[in-house]
Amino acid sequence: MGSVIASMSMSLDGFVAGPNDEVDHVFAWYDAGQARVGTDRAEVFPPGALGSLVCGRRLFELTNAWGGRHPMGVHVFIVTHSVPDGWPRGDTPFTFVTDGVAGAVRQAKDLAGGRDVAIATPSITQQCLALGLVDVIAVDLVPVLLGEGIPFFAGLVKAPLELGTPTVVEGKGVTHLRYPVAH
Amino acid sequence: MGSVIASMSMSLDGFVAGPNDEVDHVFAWYDAGQARVGTDRAEVFPPGALGSLVCGRRLFELTNAWGGRHPMGVHVFIVTHSVPDGWPRGDTPFTFVTDGVAGAVRQAKDLAGGRDVAIATPSITQQCLALGLVDVIAVDLVPVLLGEGIPFFAGLVKAPLELGTPTVVEGKGVTHLRYPVAH
Repeated sequence: MGSVIASMSMSLDGFVAGPNDEVDHVFAWYDAGQARVGTDRAEVFPPGALGSLVCGRRLFELTNAWGGRHPMGVHVFIVTHSVPDGWPRGDTPFTFVTDGVAGAVRQAKDLAGGRDVAIATPSITQQCLALGLVDVIAVDLVPVLLGEGIPFFAGLVKAPLELGTPTVVEGKGVTHLRYPVAH
Repeated sequence: MGSVIASMSMSLDGFVAGPNDEVDHVFAWYDAGQARVGTDRAEVFPPGALGSLVCGRRLFELTNAWGGRHPMGVHVFIVTHSVPDGWPRGDTPFTFVTDGVAGAVRQAKDLAGGRDVAIATPSITQQCLALGLVDVIAVDLVPVLLGEGIPFFAGLVKAPLELGTPTVVEGKGVTHLRYPVAH
């Protein structure tokens, strides 16, 4: 059975982006990692491990629908209040979910089969943590202090939330930490 | 030559204490670590490595002067606007510094000789980072989300601040990360 993994790159002071959505610092290790291991995010999700991805409408729009296909090659479930104009299109690998995060995670798990489901947005992560839907918190901890920005873990409903001891993988310009979440 | 090391236990969401100075979660690994390695904080500062410590007046008072002696056995330089009533006392290992953090770090380095100087307060760390006085940021990263509290890295003057790739030591209930700070 796969896990539901909240997975983001985060600065040492807890931000997944700067105050104006800047991600150059927190994603700098992507390039370094690609140069080193020759593949995209293989340090975090080995090829074939990820079955689907859940994110929010905002990320979908910020990335301009990832140019039509998510870089990790998986189907994306986008939580939104309403389906954006012009979507869905053709056979693009996107599903718009308008009945909340629980429904999105359920659909994502169904599609993933035995593989993992990744959650890639702070607000969706926070909602899923509140509902007890997260199995693993995977932080790609980046050696930078941003000072301000968009926090990964703001607005926790259940706090303090104790996590398990993480598994650690040391990357170049990043430390990958995977924390089990007890249910 | 020793290093000036800003060293604190921090939750995964960036807090060194809860909103009312609760430190039970972020210091839980102390007990676990003592049981395992038989000594206090040996994972972070090997015996003899630390020469002195700089902190603020607030920590001095919160801990009631650590009962007269800091648990790490070193001399403590306390940055304060005014020397507290009744201090200094006898030959207690405390020096009160009223001319700011730079003077405190200079005195602490003089006393430490070739050993390390630890900074153990968020506000002093922030001031020292602004002045370029910190050589290493040592985070004992604790697997808990506090949701709110006292942040380690608020109020950065120089941000974004890029750090070096950390050295990593995996402890029980804690991940020790040492980030070099470029000058």
